[in-house]
Amino acid sequence: MKAKIFKTESQARGLKIIPLGGLESIGMNITAFEYGDDIIVVDCGLAFPDDDMLGIDLVIPDVTYLENNIDKVRGFVITHGHEDHIGSLPYILKTVNVPVYATKLTMGIIEHKLKEHNLLRATKRKVIKHGQSINLGCFRIEFIKTNHSIADATALAIYTPEGIIIHTGDFKIDYTPVFGESIDLQRFAELGKKGVLALMCDSTNAERPGFTASERTVGRSIDHIFDEHRKGRIIVATFASNVDRVQQIINSAYKYGRKVIIEGRSMVNIISIASELGYIRIPEHTLVDIEHIRNYPDDQLVLITTGSQGETMAALSRMANNTHRKVSIKPNDTIVLSSNPIPGNEKAVSNIINELFRKGAEVIFQDTHVSGHACAEEIKLIYALTRPKYAVPVHGEYRHLKAQAKLAETMGVPKDRIYILSSGDVLEFKNKTAKVTGHVPHGCIMVDGLGVGDVGNIVLRDRQMLSQNGLLIVVLTLSHKGNELLSGPDIVSRGFVYVRESESLMEDARKVVSAAVDRCLSHHVTDWSKIKNTIRDELSDYVWKQTKRNPMILPIIMEVDA
Amino acid sequence: MKAKIFKTESQARGLKIIPLGGLESIGMNITAFEYGDDIIVVDCGLAFPDDDMLGIDLVIPDVTYLENNIDKVRGFVITHGHEDHIGSLPYILKTVNVPVYATKLTMGIIEHKLKEHNLLRATKRKVIKHGQSINLGCFRIEFIKTNHSIADATALAIYTPEGIIIHTGDFKIDYTPVFGESIDLQRFAELGKKGVLALMCDSTNAERPGFTASERTVGRSIDHIFDEHRKGRIIVATFASNVDRVQQIINSAYKYGRKVIIEGRSMVNIISIASELGYIRIPEHTLVDIEHIRNYPDDQLVLITTGSQGETMAALSRMANNTHRKVSIKPNDTIVLSSNPIPGNEKAVSNIINELFRKGAEVIFQDTHVSGHACAEEIKLIYALTRPKYAVPVHGEYRHLKAQAKLAETMGVPKDRIYILSSGDVLEFKNKTAKVTGHVPHGCIMVDGLGVGDVGNIVLRDRQMLSQNGLLIVVLTLSHKGNELLSGPDIVSRGFVYVRESESLMEDARKVVSAAVDRCLSHHVTDWSKIKNTIRDELSDYVWKQTKRNPMILPIIMEVDA
Repeated sequence: MKAKIFKTESQARGLKIIPLGGLESIGMNITAFEYGDDIIVVDCGLAFPDDDMLGIDLVIPDVTYLENNIDKVRGFVITHGHEDHIGSLPYILKTVNVPVYATKLTMGIIEHKLKEHNLLRATKRKVIKHGQSINLGCFRIEFIKTNHSIADATALAIYTPEGIIIHTGDFKIDYTPVFGESIDLQRFAELGKKGVLALMCDSTNAERPGFTASERTVGRSIDHIFDEHRKGRIIVATFASNVDRVQQIINSAYKYGRKVIIEGRSMVNIISIASELGYIRIPEHTLVDIEHIRNYPDDQLVLITTGSQGETMAALSRMANNTHRKVSIKPNDTIVLSSNPIPGNEKAVSNIINELFRKGAEVIFQDTHVSGHACAEEIKLIYALTRPKYAVPVHGEYRHLKAQAKLAETMGVPKDRIYILSSGDVLEFKNKTAKVTGHVPHGCIMVDGLGVGDVGNIVLRDRQMLSQNGLLIVVLTLSHKGNELLSGPDIVSRGFVYVRESESLMEDARKVVSAAVDRCLSHHVTDWSKIKNTIRDELSDYVWKQTKRNPMILPIIMEVDA
Repeated sequence: MKAKIFKTESQARGLKIIPLGGLESIGMNITAFEYGDDIIVVDCGLAFPDDDMLGIDLVIPDVTYLENNIDKVRGFVITHGHEDHIGSLPYILKTVNVPVYATKLTMGIIEHKLKEHNLLRATKRKVIKHGQSINLGCFRIEFIKTNHSIADATALAIYTPEGIIIHTGDFKIDYTPVFGESIDLQRFAELGKKGVLALMCDSTNAERPGFTASERTVGRSIDHIFDEHRKGRIIVATFASNVDRVQQIINSAYKYGRKVIIEGRSMVNIISIASELGYIRIPEHTLVDIEHIRNYPDDQLVLITTGSQGETMAALSRMANNTHRKVSIKPNDTIVLSSNPIPGNEKAVSNIINELFRKGAEVIFQDTHVSGHACAEEIKLIYALTRPKYAVPVHGEYRHLKAQAKLAETMGVPKDRIYILSSGDVLEFKNKTAKVTGHVPHGCIMVDGLGVGDVGNIVLRDRQMLSQNGLLIVVLTLSHKGNELLSGPDIVSRGFVYVRESESLMEDARKVVSAAVDRCLSHHVTDWSKIKNTIRDELSDYVWKQTKRNPMILPIIMEVDA
């Protein structure tokens, strides 16, 4: 009886799709699928901070909703091993400790991460093959082979009581992949024939017309560069996780008789995982440890390194700035940036290109990269194969979701069946119709050092203010009775002006404060917050008039029994 | 006799070319040409701060060299009216008060700037026409018509005792310009026939193959957009100084029966200057003041506005964020970004595109802009016409200068006659040969509010540190004799952690400091700097262990007679 009531209730509730990834613009991927008493979560990514999140190391999603429904959560299903899809796992598993399902390479990368956080033994994990399905509560989830800029990426067919949802993960169509099979287009077509309730498709490149080129085309460019630059050292910077790219660089190195040095922590990690699991084939005696770099002449060496995004702490930047302990850039070096700048990194990448040129090196940064995401024609092909009733564009900024929405419309999905969801939105399918029926808690939790969530908007606002104009600290000591100034007021500044060149400004500021304090005391103001406000107002006025700047002003009153 | 000696000396010194524009990467243009007792200065630009120049408004060049040689300086010769070529004039003219020479529109823009700084009457100015020459000391400078993204741009032929230097300024080749003539290629050819010692050519687009399209092609795109979007309001954001672009938008508005509102301070300024001077033709009754916006239906309106770079304070951002006092974005609006993001602004532009889409508006940002700079084939054409003996690439980051250097080589300039100069380098031509013979003072002076140069590296380093981790202030009061703690130690934090959620951390930090102070006092340490260092070290250790963060720690000791 109870079960029956429950069943009716859950049917009444329908299938819910709930993205929890905070802001679209900083792109962490985590989406809950809920039906009745079951929740599965697709991906568990982190985001890198926006420019205005000063001092923040990374951002993870607020999963209060999952914590509040912990009894329902059946597992994390992961589409591929990029940080924006797996990076929050070590943080979230601490409170949402459910099994993790992923393909082999993806799981290898996750396990490395969990080890670092001492979570490996506490986490149930299961490796799934493409074509295989798992049952989690009322859901069946089938893994479908796709292509992407990391091997072993998967799309998901999620069988729910309301119908089939296809989630592409991040993908492209590569008919001639470097490793393994091409995307399983036939399976997409079969599912389309069966009937797909909703397609959740990667939008990242939806604004770009045409098709994304095959990864193999980069291999040919790299081979050509090796052929033309037989003298001197070659250094190739690329994304650590692009195992197929690294494979192709190694192939060229082998062909042209060069040894390979892998450099940069994340590059070393991922390549060793990929090598262990058989996702990369490195000919014997090809790899050389960086410690032995001096044993080989430049024209027999290739360095494959991190830092293609201009990250100041990555290996390439350190080489360019002579702070790398083993490698400095030399005039005979050929440096290949096998990457495009991720939006927001353009300036940093340009800075490193300038620096490398300044060191006299040859720098090659055009036609040495292809995207891992589907362009407009590929997205249209997936729509043509799956013919979904509803479209729920995923992955990308709002503009990209919007661009896919337009593509979906041209592919025959009616406008009112296309949903661009915001984080926390509950999209509910019931009796084959869809509606946004609610909103759950969601958001960004900032990680700074060891602190998770202890930096909020007030702290950020203070950092912002301090970064723009610095601060003035006013300190004074009052007697306990509050009517006698025992020392000060002194002004200490940081990040405001170069004090030695602004002595008279600082001295006049002190006079302004002194007068304000005297006035308060002679009027017998004993409320310290009033004294502080007076100091703040008058000093702030004075400084603005003199400098047109707004430093933070921080009055501190010490009390002494006297 | 004296004159003769002098003449020999000056010939012995040769012609010097000295760029003074600080860092190439932030691109302010100012170059001194010196021969004997004469110096002329081409352009006097400002730069916008790099990301790490926290709180800085703008950057101007250090012109100590000009100040030290003020008796020689004959004038500023300005190539066009963009900020990176004229923006420092109001600052530099205060100490280097020499005449300014420019074409009519450029001078109009300069005069507006000088008025704002109360410098108009104190500055000698002369408007020069294309084809006209001026004599400044031993130099003759001829103005040669070019095309650029602002009208009235000029190249300079600088006749010196050592030969002719051609400085292109920023330019493109537009065979079908919107206003006025095409670039005077014949004159470049004539000078080439005469013999050009050195070509200083714009490098900005040297990495891009082919030709930059004519400004007119944008007019056609805009016309097409107006044709296809007859319902609702159209808002076009573009660069304030691109008068020809604004002209074309106005033409389309007129054609499709829409009134035009110009919005954004710099847009209003430049368009009114251009209109006064006859560089833009606005049909009668076309312009409408924004105060009367409510009198016109949406489909009879076009707004032309600033903010195409995503600047948070510009009109478009304010419209998108509902903080504009007259205009909010509506679902029926069509917004055209007639611009490309300037490097470094990509993320900001993307953010505003997202925001506009979220408001439901149609946003068009592709194929609505052409560059104002010459691509590789145009640069090669200038080399083909002028056949310079030496190449000194200018304008652009180091990578762009390098790209032009390669073009120059393909055009037959030998590698050892191509000079990529750094700021402060002295390139000297003597008897038709060139050599870098010295280095003069140069650099960036940061402007923050009213302060010019009072923010230096120490202040910036403090702002950087404060922005990343905030600060902890430790205050305590000691007796005059230094052996008694009268109050404190108290800890005040800003931008560090959200204190209410980190009470125990802050309380423990206070205990650490308290113990450190007690220890100092019981060991009779009376040297305050030692006490401060002890506090700093121990608190810093404690905080790092607990949080892996490095806030600035600022111990302040107050002294009271007791």
